Amino acid sequence: MPLPIAFLGPKGTYAEVAAIACQQLFNTKGYEAQLLPYSSIVQALRAVSMQQTEFAVVPVENSIEGGVSATLDTLWQLDTLQIQQALVLPIAHTLLSYARSLDTIRVIYSHPQALAQCQLWLEKFLPKADLMPTNSTTEALQHLKADATIAAVASQRASEIYSIPILAQPINDHPDNCTRFWLVSREPSKQGSHTSLAFSFPANRPGALAKALQSFAQREINLSRIESRPTKRSLGEYLFFVDLEANLQEVRVQSVLQELEDCTETLKVFGSYSILLID
Amino acid sequence: MPLPIAFLGPKGTYAEVAAIACQQLFNTKGYEAQLLPYSSIVQALRAVSMQQTEFAVVPVENSIEGGVSATLDTLWQLDTLQIQQALVLPIAHTLLSYARSLDTIRVIYSHPQALAQCQLWLEKFLPKADLMPTNSTTEALQHLKADATIAAVASQRASEIYSIPILAQPINDHPDNCTRFWLVSREPSKQGSHTSLAFSFPANRPGALAKALQSFAQREINLSRIESRPTKRSLGEYLFFVDLEANLQEVRVQSVLQELEDCTETLKVFGSYSILLID
Repeated sequence: MPLPIAFLGPKGTYAEVAAIACQQLFNTKGYEAQLLPYSSIVQALRAVSMQQTEFAVVPVENSIEGGVSATLDTLWQLDTLQIQQALVLPIAHTLLSYARSLDTIRVIYSHPQALAQCQLWLEKFLPKADLMPTNSTTEALQHLKADATIAAVASQRASEIYSIPILAQPINDHPDNCTRFWLVSREPSKQGSHTSLAFSFPANRPGALAKALQSFAQREINLSRIESRPTKRSLGEYLFFVDLEANLQEVRVQSVLQELEDCTETLKVFGSYSILLID
Repeated sequence: MPLPIAFLGPKGTYAEVAAIACQQLFNTKGYEAQLLPYSSIVQALRAVSMQQTEFAVVPVENSIEGGVSATLDTLWQLDTLQIQQALVLPIAHTLLSYARSLDTIRVIYSHPQALAQCQLWLEKFLPKADLMPTNSTTEALQHLKADATIAAVASQRASEIYSIPILAQPINDHPDNCTRFWLVSREPSKQGSHTSLAFSFPANRPGALAKALQSFAQREINLSRIESRPTKRSLGEYLFFVDLEANLQEVRVQSVLQELEDCTETLKVFGSYSILLID
């Protein structure tokens, strides 16, 4: 039976491109995988937690727009998922439309993150167009009809699948635009050069974060990322997600975890994994 | 002539409620202020930077959904704005609709942040409804007609201004939901118990953040918040926004700034200000 992988659908989203890369990765290992679209990141992650699927692939961070709150908050809350693999996908946004030129376009639909990543381009070439948010880049395509006043921002793959002409590409403001995804499952994950953790501190503990970061620095464990999220208890209380450039089984990592156990309120380890760059 | 204050409009948004609180604050000081709606946070901030208005009031952080990227990124980029005042507004979302009961509702429109803040309530009481994103909570109201299948999530003030019935309230998942706003202008800002800074480090400087945070801890300067944002150069490069519980003119703050000048790549100071809790 093929291994089920949940992703934020429908077909044609960047998450599907990442899911296809996971599928190919499984193929090279002799497994078959099947892609299952879900209508939100939260639902895709819950499907794994509730044993409806084995895997989910979810966006974690974009190089321009930053962390994906829904992914981080849900991983923290579910407390059952481990990261099996990280994938980095280059993002090249395209402007899709049945219009023949930019002149007639009045409204542009897309996911808010995609619109934000093309903000300067859109202001320069379509300064008068209204920007309208949608739940996914693919959902934006539903608004396109044989209408020369509407455009959508989506992936090149979406243009191919749904046979919609590309009016301009790439239209992202930053050429180095890429998104990092995590492939998660319920299985323990101990192999690979990167490790992800999250922790919160007891209330009113000034200097607690400085002390925790010092614990990593003393052991020469490099942090490739730190991101704060609200605890949702009260304004000004945070938990922190960190990515380490080290494996969970290293002595220095085990030792830092022991130290963190003592100074944190809650400490969650999301496993070790390697990073795959998608072409 | 009244002092112009830009905010994310149209009328009825939470940003307008915060802007009205600023207006009242000016009144108590003997000034008149006029509220000017803008269609995005970026445009409201730019209006101040380009001297089209004197002030803007923008959301910085919500206690549930976290930092507002557009505000942080634009402040970093414009490099000309100073924080005059922080305001904390309690958020109580209401479900607005012409429907007589929840049973008939199939689609719910709102700003993605508002939908996220009511996620559990909506899943419990309207599990089959589609959630549709809009640019602001007020824009969601445009989709309401005398149609019993559609609802919107917005503020109580929006219900009053636009005379739309409230079907349920409050519907936020967390009772302690509040949003922090900043009132900014081009004037230097040196009074108040809180100070905001942002800094980036030169590439590949492991332990740099730990060292910077240690500089604050050594001087017993408490950080009430730290938030990372991508530098937009490449994945894995961040800048950090921090809020200090100290005034800019204190000797310990001047001394930490001097130390940061040496170890950061870019250091920006957004001024000192006090915090006003809105009822």
